[in-house]
Amino acid sequence: MSSLLILNGPNLNMLGVRQPEIYGATRLQDIKTLCIARAKELGISCAFEQTNIEGELVTMIQDARGVHDAIILNAGAYTHTSIALMDAILASEVPTIELHLSNIHARESFRQTSYVATAAIGQICGFGAKGYLLAIDAAAGLSEIP
Amino acid sequence: MSSLLILNGPNLNMLGVRQPEIYGATRLQDIKTLCIARAKELGISCAFEQTNIEGELVTMIQDARGVHDAIILNAGAYTHTSIALMDAILASEVPTIELHLSNIHARESFRQTSYVATAAIGQICGFGAKGYLLAIDAAAGLSEIP
Amino acid sequence: MSSLLILNGPNLNMLGVRQPEIYGATRLQDIKTLCIARAKELGISCAFEQTNIEGELVTMIQDARGVHDAIILNAGAYTHTSIALMDAILASEVPTIELHLSNIHARESFRQTSYVATAAIGQICGFGAKGYLLAIDAAAGLSEIP
Amino acid sequence: MSSLLILNGPNLNMLGVRQPEIYGATRLQDIKTLCIARAKELGISCAFEQTNIEGELVTMIQDARGVHDAIILNAGAYTHTSIALMDAILASEVPTIELHLSNIHARESFRQTSYVATAAIGQICGFGAKGYLLAIDAAAGLSEIP
Amino acid sequence: MSSLLILNGPNLNMLGVRQPEIYGATRLQDIKTLCIARAKELGISCAFEQTNIEGELVTMIQDARGVHDAIILNAGAYTHTSIALMDAILASEVPTIELHLSNIHARESFRQTSYVATAAIGQICGFGAKGYLLAIDAAAGLSEIP
Amino acid sequence: MSSLLILNGPNLNMLGVRQPEIYGATRLQDIKTLCIARAKELGISCAFEQTNIEGELVTMIQDARGVHDAIILNAGAYTHTSIALMDAILASEVPTIELHLSNIHARESFRQTSYVATAAIGQICGFGAKGYLLAIDAAAGLSEIP
Amino acid sequence: MSSLLILNGPNLNMLGVRQPEIYGATRLQDIKTLCIARAKELGISCAFEQTNIEGELVTMIQDARGVHDAIILNAGAYTHTSIALMDAILASEVPTIELHLSNIHARESFRQTSYVATAAIGQICGFGAKGYLLAIDAAAGLSEIP
Amino acid sequence: MSSLLILNGPNLNMLGVRQPEIYGATRLQDIKTLCIARAKELGISCAFEQTNIEGELVTMIQDARGVHDAIILNAGAYTHTSIALMDAILASEVPTIELHLSNIHARESFRQTSYVATAAIGQICGFGAKGYLLAIDAAAGLSEIP
Amino acid sequence: MSSLLILNGPNLNMLGVRQPEIYGATRLQDIKTLCIARAKELGISCAFEQTNIEGELVTMIQDARGVHDAIILNAGAYTHTSIALMDAILASEVPTIELHLSNIHARESFRQTSYVATAAIGQICGFGAKGYLLAIDAAAGLSEIP
Amino acid sequence: MSSLLILNGPNLNMLGVRQPEIYGATRLQDIKTLCIARAKELGISCAFEQTNIEGELVTMIQDARGVHDAIILNAGAYTHTSIALMDAILASEVPTIELHLSNIHARESFRQTSYVATAAIGQICGFGAKGYLLAIDAAAGLSEIP
Amino acid sequence: MSSLLILNGPNLNMLGVRQPEIYGATRLQDIKTLCIARAKELGISCAFEQTNIEGELVTMIQDARGVHDAIILNAGAYTHTSIALMDAILASEVPTIELHLSNIHARESFRQTSYVATAAIGQICGFGAKGYLLAIDAAAGLSEIP
Amino acid sequence: MSSLLILNGPNLNMLGVRQPEIYGATRLQDIKTLCIARAKELGISCAFEQTNIEGELVTMIQDARGVHDAIILNAGAYTHTSIALMDAILASEVPTIELHLSNIHARESFRQTSYVATAAIGQICGFGAKGYLLAIDAAAGLSEIP
Repeated sequence: MSSLLILNGPNLNMLGVRQPEIYGATRLQDIKTLCIARAKELGISCAFEQTNIEGELVTMIQDARGVHDAIILNAGAYTHTSIALMDAILASEVPTIELHLSNIHARESFRQTSYVATAAIGQICGFGAKGYLLAIDAAAGLSEIP
Repeated sequence: MSSLLILNGPNLNMLGVRQPEIYGATRLQDIKTLCIARAKELGISCAFEQTNIEGELVTMIQDARGVHDAIILNAGAYTHTSIALMDAILASEVPTIELHLSNIHARESFRQTSYVATAAIGQICGFGAKGYLLAIDAAAGLSEIP
Repeated sequence: MSSLLILNGPNLNMLGVRQPEIYGATRLQDIKTLCIARAKELGISCAFEQTNIEGELVTMIQDARGVHDAIILNAGAYTHTSIALMDAILASEVPTIELHLSNIHARESFRQTSYVATAAIGQICGFGAKGYLLAIDAAAGLSEIP
Repeated sequence: MSSLLILNGPNLNMLGVRQPEIYGATRLQDIKTLCIARAKELGISCAFEQTNIEGELVTMIQDARGVHDAIILNAGAYTHTSIALMDAILASEVPTIELHLSNIHARESFRQTSYVATAAIGQICGFGAKGYLLAIDAAAGLSEIP
Repeated sequence: MSSLLILNGPNLNMLGVRQPEIYGATRLQDIKTLCIARAKELGISCAFEQTNIEGELVTMIQDARGVHDAIILNAGAYTHTSIALMDAILASEVPTIELHLSNIHARESFRQTSYVATAAIGQICGFGAKGYLLAIDAAAGLSEIP
Repeated sequence: MSSLLILNGPNLNMLGVRQPEIYGATRLQDIKTLCIARAKELGISCAFEQTNIEGELVTMIQDARGVHDAIILNAGAYTHTSIALMDAILASEVPTIELHLSNIHARESFRQTSYVATAAIGQICGFGAKGYLLAIDAAAGLSEIP
Repeated sequence: MSSLLILNGPNLNMLGVRQPEIYGATRLQDIKTLCIARAKELGISCAFEQTNIEGELVTMIQDARGVHDAIILNAGAYTHTSIALMDAILASEVPTIELHLSNIHARESFRQTSYVATAAIGQICGFGAKGYLLAIDAAAGLSEIP
Repeated sequence: MSSLLILNGPNLNMLGVRQPEIYGATRLQDIKTLCIARAKELGISCAFEQTNIEGELVTMIQDARGVHDAIILNAGAYTHTSIALMDAILASEVPTIELHLSNIHARESFRQTSYVATAAIGQICGFGAKGYLLAIDAAAGLSEIP
Repeated sequence: MSSLLILNGPNLNMLGVRQPEIYGATRLQDIKTLCIARAKELGISCAFEQTNIEGELVTMIQDARGVHDAIILNAGAYTHTSIALMDAILASEVPTIELHLSNIHARESFRQTSYVATAAIGQICGFGAKGYLLAIDAAAGLSEIP
Repeated sequence: MSSLLILNGPNLNMLGVRQPEIYGATRLQDIKTLCIARAKELGISCAFEQTNIEGELVTMIQDARGVHDAIILNAGAYTHTSIALMDAILASEVPTIELHLSNIHARESFRQTSYVATAAIGQICGFGAKGYLLAIDAAAGLSEIP
Repeated sequence: MSSLLILNGPNLNMLGVRQPEIYGATRLQDIKTLCIARAKELGISCAFEQTNIEGELVTMIQDARGVHDAIILNAGAYTHTSIALMDAILASEVPTIELHLSNIHARESFRQTSYVATAAIGQICGFGAKGYLLAIDAAAGLSEIP
Repeated sequence: MSSLLILNGPNLNMLGVRQPEIYGATRLQDIKTLCIARAKELGISCAFEQTNIEGELVTMIQDARGVHDAIILNAGAYTHTSIALMDAILASEVPTIELHLSNIHARESFRQTSYVATAAIGQICGFGAKGYLLAIDAAAGLSEIP
């Protein structure tokens, strides 16, 4: 595990602004800083991206093939509706961890379906910004999982 | 965070025996040893229990009230059918992290519903035995989550 | 009507502790005292039990056969999922009144299904602890119902 | 609690005539007499009405506002289909107890849905004519419910 | 078979005006004339009513008890939503024939459900005004049906 | 209207034998005799057929094209499952009346769906053997329906 | 556009009384005054009615035929359950605008179905009392819509 | 209310070209001209945009935060499938009015679901190009809605 | 029990050829030989038939009336779709045992519905060719079942 | 095949008492005697257990691993709701035959779902007490099934 | 690829007669001629059959085993309801191409389900008679598909 | 037919890389070469595009209006979720053929729904890269289809 891609989907650029009672007050830029620091501690290089466009997420996941060893994907609202994302993960063949700030399983029913999950290794949700660090730790240990 | 309860539901005593291609080869006793060690590093005392009986899980969760600061709950198959477990978590008012060895969202549809989730803070799934350690780390940081 | 069994299911031992805004502040022990007093006034002996284990509820209902003239059953969360409880009531052939503290029909959709109802004479819900006394009155009048 | 309105919906004027094996042989006029007597014992004045017209039930519930302290509503078949009744109860802000002669939860599936329940305090069903008296007792105790 | 009640529900007073491509150009008054003539030929007296109010249909059906030997009921749109009508037919215990001008089973899905059917002897639909005459013939032969 | 085809589907050859409490005691041969007599009175020639094989019903309906002026179709159990019958009626372009001995709308839910209805002019059900005569009368008047 | 009918269904007479956090504090009488004033400005005469009875709404819509050039219909709870209203609009052939005070599409799922919509030209909802004025403006411009 | 953003989603650039029998013959450019004129009359500045890309709509809604006082959103086909748009409206906290040219509630069932509605103040649909002007009027009055 | 009919539906003539990993390698002719031998041991005569045509199965079941004392029916794919078969069993009034080679309850969901079951005494599935012998034993003991 | 475990779930201890019209008059103790005798004939040792507690069934199935060569499981009501039982069978890897006294496929719809089936080899149902003997015969032949 | 079987199901013998606006004016005989010509060009012998009977289609597919190298199957209405056809294709192990004249995915919802598809290699639909030629070309290239 | 547009949606740029067991080993660039060659043979000019962004597909389809005579659309995962694509095809009024490499009707249920189909002329799926050539042939013959 030497290179990691952290991808953020729609509206995550509004973190710290949008509904802080659900998503917390930390801004995405702060999370990026935290993530890069943590990855560095673990000897992993770490790219961190955000886009509101589903098709750009698809392309970023495709481009990770042969470049990154793992993806941490917080696909936001596209998690629940995008078969294209699921196909992109399968096409890239890069191990992917699904991440959500809130506990999506305790929210509206339409947030309890995940196409991403079908193609992901595992899921971490409900721990706010701290979830990113847990996901990096999980990614770091991926090769150890039997 | 000084005391943690790790609860395991039905068939988890078969870990290492049962379907290793899904659940891994580690035995529950091994996981207990790993968990207690990790908790000790973090200065947390850690109880670790397993039962096949839904009602005993309910009682253990109730008894955690005023005794433990957090619960890590791998409720196994009862996750998907037990409203009683959900009610017990709400009644105990102990912050609870939902844990699964496999990525339940990528399996049969009846494993994609969770009553536990409704009452839990967050969920970690798909990382095998390593998920227990991630959950302990998450529990250790619970008071920091905004 | 000379002997009555009042059965309480999972988490009802947490009454007065658990979510008082929904279930009230009275403890189950207080309710027991009130019930026994009311039954005594009506010349009825009254057993009062609680368990968190579905199968023990099943056994208690079976054991009421030939012993008690009626059952008041607050099956808690098992109400909505237990076909075994329904079968036990049919097997015991003891007239059974379904009881709930809260108005289950105004809550989450999964609390609006009742397997107990299929085998019960009637239902009383939404009146908190007072519902137990209404149910005792209803039981006292069962032989009069045409 | 000084004034109570008991409202009966469609086909309840056929009581004692209609399907006595389900609804009993008592006529609605007999029930009215029993109810007024019981209310009198409790020091409560009691109005007792019946109509087959949904919109008239709506109006009667609205008119209870500021006049009656509680409503006992046996809405008959409109229970299962009338959002207008639900809205009327919310608009009148008079505490309402839902009543049914038969155990609606053990009958056809379309009788197991209740719009009235969404706006009511609680429900009593399955006790035939005696249910009216239980409901009056419940109404008398409404201010005591925590 | 000496007395027959023909009941028409909402919007049937618009016959001949409303959507003639579906319901034909004959007015309800014309149908009444045809029905009374046909009944007279068969030695049957025939009442013919229309109302837009569901509860009035309920009352008319109740009032048929002991007065009419059969009811022909074209309940219009209430066919599909009114449990109260179903209950009224059961309460009146007067044999009832369900009638529709159009073939409801070939129209929108919400017109393919009938609560009336649950309580009716049989159904005739799709034959326009002529269906009334077929229904009178069917009613005339009711006592012969084994 | 000079020629009429009456088609009977699976198990109707068992009439008078099969479940007489639902279908009556008259045999299919008796009904054939009654039908031919009635048609003769109306100056209509009448073919009367039965088969247990769905595909043979399809062929018979196709063959009616240009030969018969109307079809009376009692498709029995195929009513509810056969899209092929529906297509055959559309292909033959012969006006078709759907007939059932019992009131299918008051029976099991799977008997309340009709593919035949989608292609038929109208439906008569619930009047037992007499329904055949009503259907012949309806067919005789088909050209009069606006 | 010279004459307009504004029809209000069940519980709208409770406006200003009922749940002001959802429906606002303006009374229906106030809205009537505002509507008549606005219509007058536009040179339109305006009738304004309310009833709690579904069948009376049906009749009022039928009676608008040949009398009014448009209907603004706030059918309240009947919006979601009344096929009879839908049929009445089709029968009257008067262009109809569906109106709701609250945004029904953001409320309970049973308020998100509208039979009225099937027969209406358009819908305005969520703007409280002001919605009536928007609907009058919309009605005034109906003949201009291509 | 001094600044307004009018956003148009996929295929609205085809207005006047695409299915004029449903959407009218006016081109989007014409509507823009009409909107700016109307807004000017009301003393409101008005931006008017169109894009076929869901993620760009998300970004435009986010960018309205602190810039515009209200959004009029005709999200076209994304209305029915885009949770991302719903989240963007919530994140921007700019009051949003949902707009559709056609009466979506009278079309295919998949057009009768709206994620936008969950986050919007109200909805106007079915009035063609004129709906834009009604929406501007509604936006102008937003601060007056209680 | 002196005479037994064993009926096989579509594709069972392909046994031993078709998907041997699901259905085994034994040919239908072999099973026939085994069945006749077993029946003979039990003193029962045994007819053994196969057809791919649903309507022929219907006829064979009808013809068993008064001829055979029991039917063992492996209806293959028609099990899941044929109401006509269900009706034929009811019409024949010959006790019928449902048989499947594979465990249909562990396969695709559309194989988990059985119209045959509604009319059959019991079901044996999952035991391959041996299931025929178990079914013969079960049939032999039918008269003993209370 | 030298050792067999026969497991009985909730309410089966009431056999002979409970609803004899459905389950027969034989007591579970009688069945045990019959089973042990039959197994003995076949040279198989046979354990026979019953419990009302789901979790105890889970444990008994787990404990069969390495001890018994096959399980006959009549899980009663837990059949339809227990994913834990399904997982236990998979974990134990002991071939399991699903058994029911009644034909569950001809009863209420909630009895037509089986989690046990997903993990079982085959199913026998509807033959009352005799089903146990058929299941023993089937178990005896398990090693022969291709 | 030397031998091809083209199979046509119910009502396809009505081609050119039946609903030409959907299915075109070409007769099945014409299509046969075209197909044989095209196959000849490609050096393939070609059998061409039609039947209205589901079970005969099953048999024809079975009989193709070892005789034909591919099947082109236009199963008509049986496409949507016949599990037996699906099983026959699997049993025959002959590569099968699903064909429809009309675009079934743009028609009624019950035509959008295909059991045939589950067992087929691919599907061609919506191209009328020309689809047969495309299917022959596709079959000719089957061995080339990776 | 002189100009053809072939459009490819998300992840099709991964062809030959992504899941070759489902989609084959040919790269999209190879397919483009094959398509242009085939079109040239038929005297058709051929544009060939790919994008991962739904909105760009929408724009490309719109831009085909007046430029291309037909579109071949392999919309990948957007096929199943994009109403916007459906609307774009309707808006462009360019005849469109739906194409898929795999047989989507034999895969996951969410791949069996197609919004594209509603607006397309026909569909070809399951033939891998060869499907493109079949689609070009189909497009070439479009003007001949009656």
